[in-house]
Amino acid sequence: MPAEPTPAALPVAAARRRRLRADRARQLADLLRHQILAGGFPSGVLPLEDAIAADYRASRNTVRQALDLLRGERLVDRQPGVGTVVVCVKYPHGLDRLQGLAETLHEHGRVTNEVRTVGPVTAPGPVAHRLGLPEHTDVLCIERLRRLNGLPLSLDLSYLPMDVGGELLGCDLENTDVFRLLESLTGAPLGHAEITLEAVNADAHSAAVLQAPRGAAVLMLERLTCLSDGRPVDLEFIRFRGDRITMSGLLHRSV
Amino acid sequence: MPAEPTPAALPVAAARRRRLRADRARQLADLLRHQILAGGFPSGVLPLEDAIAADYRASRNTVRQALDLLRGERLVDRQPGVGTVVVCVKYPHGLDRLQGLAETLHEHGRVTNEVRTVGPVTAPGPVAHRLGLPEHTDVLCIERLRRLNGLPLSLDLSYLPMDVGGELLGCDLENTDVFRLLESLTGAPLGHAEITLEAVNADAHSAAVLQAPRGAAVLMLERLTCLSDGRPVDLEFIRFRGDRITMSGLLHRSV
Repeated sequence: MPAEPTPAALPVAAARRRRLRADRARQLADLLRHQILAGGFPSGVLPLEDAIAADYRASRNTVRQALDLLRGERLVDRQPGVGTVVVCVKYPHGLDRLQGLAETLHEHGRVTNEVRTVGPVTAPGPVAHRLGLPEHTDVLCIERLRRLNGLPLSLDLSYLPMDVGGELLGCDLENTDVFRLLESLTGAPLGHAEITLEAVNADAHSAAVLQAPRGAAVLMLERLTCLSDGRPVDLEFIRFRGDRITMSGLLHRSV
Repeated sequence: MPAEPTPAALPVAAARRRRLRADRARQLADLLRHQILAGGFPSGVLPLEDAIAADYRASRNTVRQALDLLRGERLVDRQPGVGTVVVCVKYPHGLDRLQGLAETLHEHGRVTNEVRTVGPVTAPGPVAHRLGLPEHTDVLCIERLRRLNGLPLSLDLSYLPMDVGGELLGCDLENTDVFRLLESLTGAPLGHAEITLEAVNADAHSAAVLQAPRGAAVLMLERLTCLSDGRPVDLEFIRFRGDRITMSGLLHRSV
């Protein structure tokens, strides 16, 4: 039988309880986050704290702390007289095949693009290298702020070889995915893309452009897209607002 | 020919120049970030500012601002007498097939797991639902802090059905991926997993566990892994330190 705790052990025990509660709150927040993102609260209002506590067999303190975490992520907010309401929608970007933004989000509304920069620039060494071009060749540089139903979603910077990109200059970049324009210009479907995803904190300037708080978590996608013959034609650096986009797909164990 | 700027237009022009420089600095930072992550500076030291300015046809002010952005991301630091040095390594997690952490990082070192929690818990409704179990069934809950060569990489919470998970209790969870243990216990390769990736800011407690600054960007992976017969056996919530992990893969246009 364990000995009674000595007075010296009490602060340790209290610290351990606090740590355990913080762990449980995070675990509960993760479950609630999934429910929120999966549309599990169609009314937009979460159940009362007591009901959540009963459903998840958690204490009210744990529930409160979990809701605080979700408030900190700006997923929910507390509304006097209403309760805890969902204030943020995250849109699912497909990760199973190569798709443009308007294409992958077509069920969720209209994507519009504010073209911030468009024109030829001398390709920096690594850009030329990745696009398979000689150094110091001109490439087309396009920067767009992309919105879904008017809300800023992402800031995209693209570099394209001039022979392909030049033809984009006369196209409707405001309302059309570059992928779709490339396919209609080349008359053939795109091939594949190498992608790299990272989570980074937004610097002050990117945050301001995306209308997000400074330091907000950003899902950063680097994507090198190739034609079906393997020629790289579009090198992109995309910053998605972390509070507005998820990336979902299916992975298989065997390849 | 454009008119001379009026005095009132001057602050606007200055603001526009600042904005353009901020854009260019971010664009340069993205290129340098790729070079850093791709091991493009094997000595660990970046070229001098003048050399970067020449290579990328940027002004020294733009270069300085780009390096500030990378310092803000804790990718580089300035060392007196040495210059700008790479201080952070990001490890590439494969996104092309379903892999455990030790498996995907085997070329980069040794993964060890600190088991923070392991034991049965009553499955909260959504957990039971996603694992295809009746409500209030017991499931095995495992929380591990995972390290690569001693550095914290991720905080993983897993829920498994007891008939599969129970057998994990006697296994070497400290040194082995759960995927590998599941395959050796069931005698068959795993099937597939549904994954969702998000970027979130770390709450204070998760940040402390991961030894990252509060608010640090975290790559959050939710993964539901199934056996080859399609039965879901492992629901996970994984927080990767954004400054230590990238996810890379290939996407195809046609499926």
